[in-house]
Amino acid sequence: MTRVVTPEDVEAFARLTGDDNPVHLDESYAAGTRFGRRIAHGIFAAGLISAVLGTKLPGPGAVYLHQSLDFKLPVFLGDAVTAEVTVAQVRPDKPIVTLDTRCVNQDGAVVLSGQAVLLMGGPPETGARGGT
Amino acid sequence: MTRVVTPEDVEAFARLTGDDNPVHLDESYAAGTRFGRRIAHGIFAAGLISAVLGTKLPGPGAVYLHQSLDFKLPVFLGDAVTAEVTVAQVRPDKPIVTLDTRCVNQDGAVVLSGQAVLLMGGPPETGARGGT
Repeated sequence: MTRVVTPEDVEAFARLTGDDNPVHLDESYAAGTRFGRRIAHGIFAAGLISAVLGTKLPGPGAVYLHQSLDFKLPVFLGDAVTAEVTVAQVRPDKPIVTLDTRCVNQDGAVVLSGQAVLLMGGPPETGARGGT
Repeated sequence: MTRVVTPEDVEAFARLTGDDNPVHLDESYAAGTRFGRRIAHGIFAAGLISAVLGTKLPGPGAVYLHQSLDFKLPVFLGDAVTAEVTVAQVRPDKPIVTLDTRCVNQDGAVVLSGQAVLLMGGPPETGARGGT
C-alpha cells in the first residue's frame, strides 16, 4: 500500500487530531528546524500501517492489541510512502499474531518500523493452559 | 486535550489513511462483531497523543523517536477521549525524554496506554560518554 503524502493530507491530519505543530504546517518555521522543510506527522505513517492491518493482513475481524513505532527518518511532503506488513510470529496457544510493520519511502529507506500484535477473529481459548 | 469522536472524524480518518475496515464504517457489519457497534481507529487515538506531544508537552522543537501503544479498550463513536502525557524519565546524558502517554474515555477508563520517547530541541551531545 503506497501513498504520496500531499500538503492536503498533512493539513487534514492536523485538523483531525489537533496536532498543529508548525513543523508540519508552516514552511518558514520548518525551514529553521533540523528538517529544513515541512514533514508529515509520524502517526500519519502509522495510519498507513493500520490501513494494511485493517484491510489486508490480517484484515477485518482481527483486534488491534499493540503497536510499537520507531520513527527512523522524517517523511517529507511529496514522499511516496509504502506500508509493509509481514507475519513474524503466531502463538501456538492463542490466536494472537505478531507482525513486523514498516514504512519505506521512494528511495527504499525505512522511515518507520515496529511490530503489531493482533488477536485474530473468534473467541479466545479458555483451555487449561493459563499462561499470559 | 479532550475530543469527542464523531462519525465524520472516523470517516475522514478512513479516507486519509485508506483504512476502510468495515468495523469503523459499516454499522451493520460492526453490529455482528464483538464490539456491537462502530469503533474509531486505534491510531486515531494515537493521533490525539501526538497532538499533545507536538503542541504542549514537550511541544514544537522536539523530535519523535518512538511510541508504544497498547490498545486496551475500544473507542466508540461519541466517546470523549482525553489524551494525557506525563514525564516518566529524563536521560542525564542526552536530551532524550520518555513520557507516559495514555487516552481515557468519559468514564475514566484507559483506552490506550504506552510510552513516547522524544529528542528535545538542540544538537545531541557528542561528549566523551559514548554509550547508547
